[in-house]
Amino acid sequence: MHQLPTIAQLLKGLQQIPYLASKNLYRVAEHFLNMDAEKMEQFCALLLRAKERVIKCELCFSWREKEHDCIFCANQKRDQQMICVVESWQELLAIEQTNGYTGVYHVLGGIIFPLDGVGPEDLTIEPLIKRVQQDGSKEIILALSQTPEGEATSAYIASKLKESDISVTCLARGLPVGSTLVTMDRLTVFKALSERRPF
Amino acid sequence: MHQLPTIAQLLKGLQQIPYLASKNLYRVAEHFLNMDAEKMEQFCALLLRAKERVIKCELCFSWREKEHDCIFCANQKRDQQMICVVESWQELLAIEQTNGYTGVYHVLGGIIFPLDGVGPEDLTIEPLIKRVQQDGSKEIILALSQTPEGEATSAYIASKLKESDISVTCLARGLPVGSTLVTMDRLTVFKALSERRPF
Repeated sequence: MHQLPTIAQLLKGLQQIPYLASKNLYRVAEHFLNMDAEKMEQFCALLLRAKERVIKCELCFSWREKEHDCIFCANQKRDQQMICVVESWQELLAIEQTNGYTGVYHVLGGIIFPLDGVGPEDLTIEPLIKRVQQDGSKEIILALSQTPEGEATSAYIASKLKESDISVTCLARGLPVGSTLVTMDRLTVFKALSERRPF
Repeated sequence: MHQLPTIAQLLKGLQQIPYLASKNLYRVAEHFLNMDAEKMEQFCALLLRAKERVIKCELCFSWREKEHDCIFCANQKRDQQMICVVESWQELLAIEQTNGYTGVYHVLGGIIFPLDGVGPEDLTIEPLIKRVQQDGSKEIILALSQTPEGEATSAYIASKLKESDISVTCLARGLPVGSTLVTMDRLTVFKALSERRPF
């Protein structure tokens, strides 16, 4: 590849994009090389425009259009007193897609992960605590991953909110819809059993 | 997403890139949104430069730098009389990575796939036939996929070259290195058996 410097540079640039597995890398590179010059310019304009026009909401840290208010924080039809805490925008979208949540969000920007060097100060936990204190929120739903790190982050946030009288909840754990007891892992079955509820 | 038009446009643009599964789409979009403005400009400059500087070799149809000769066709250390026919640049790279091939290549740009509307005229088969006739090549290695469509494309090319006295070969079929008879599919075992060779 060192004999083809421009292609080598392109590959290096594309490698920075996450989730491009090494086999797909060449396919994506070839896709770009095959693109019309005009289409390529349109694509670049699109990226630059997104960069320019999309910023993070100063309150909930999800993405918003620079020229518009946040579609969550400025929407009076949503319950501004109920804050769902998510790891990133992708989890926010997953919850929005259920069409079953009417509160607002708070995007942490990650979870506490000491092995990767991510501590509480790297996340938006401090602004969350301030937000709760200032806005007088009623409920915080901790919607983080069911992993040790997710649980630890939830526990950390809950401990920080201990002194305020906000209700701190977390997502229900149990059997996924459509699953069978036989195929589920032991821990999930245990959680489903110990957190059983009236039928 | 209709409430966030710039993000919707970004997602639509990214969707055109192959092999971005729908879950990764949001991750990649978020990656771009998180990029520094400067890095984003560098990335776009990279794409545009690649588009400008990288073209297809007129002889073998693999990629080459505009300002340099093709690293295969213009390399006199390679056997210009032996042409390895591959589907795309990715297969070319796979063969190059073996460090075991010293001939040149011919990139078809696909395989004959009537269901997708790809016929012989959509590929570089005609230039290949002309190339063989003009250059007096000695051997053509058909290195296409071991799929029905790959085999059909190989058969089509072989039939077109029947009248020239070039030697047409194809890749050996058999057991992959490190495989066991028990885990291989029946057809591979059959091929390995019927194409057995002296030990």
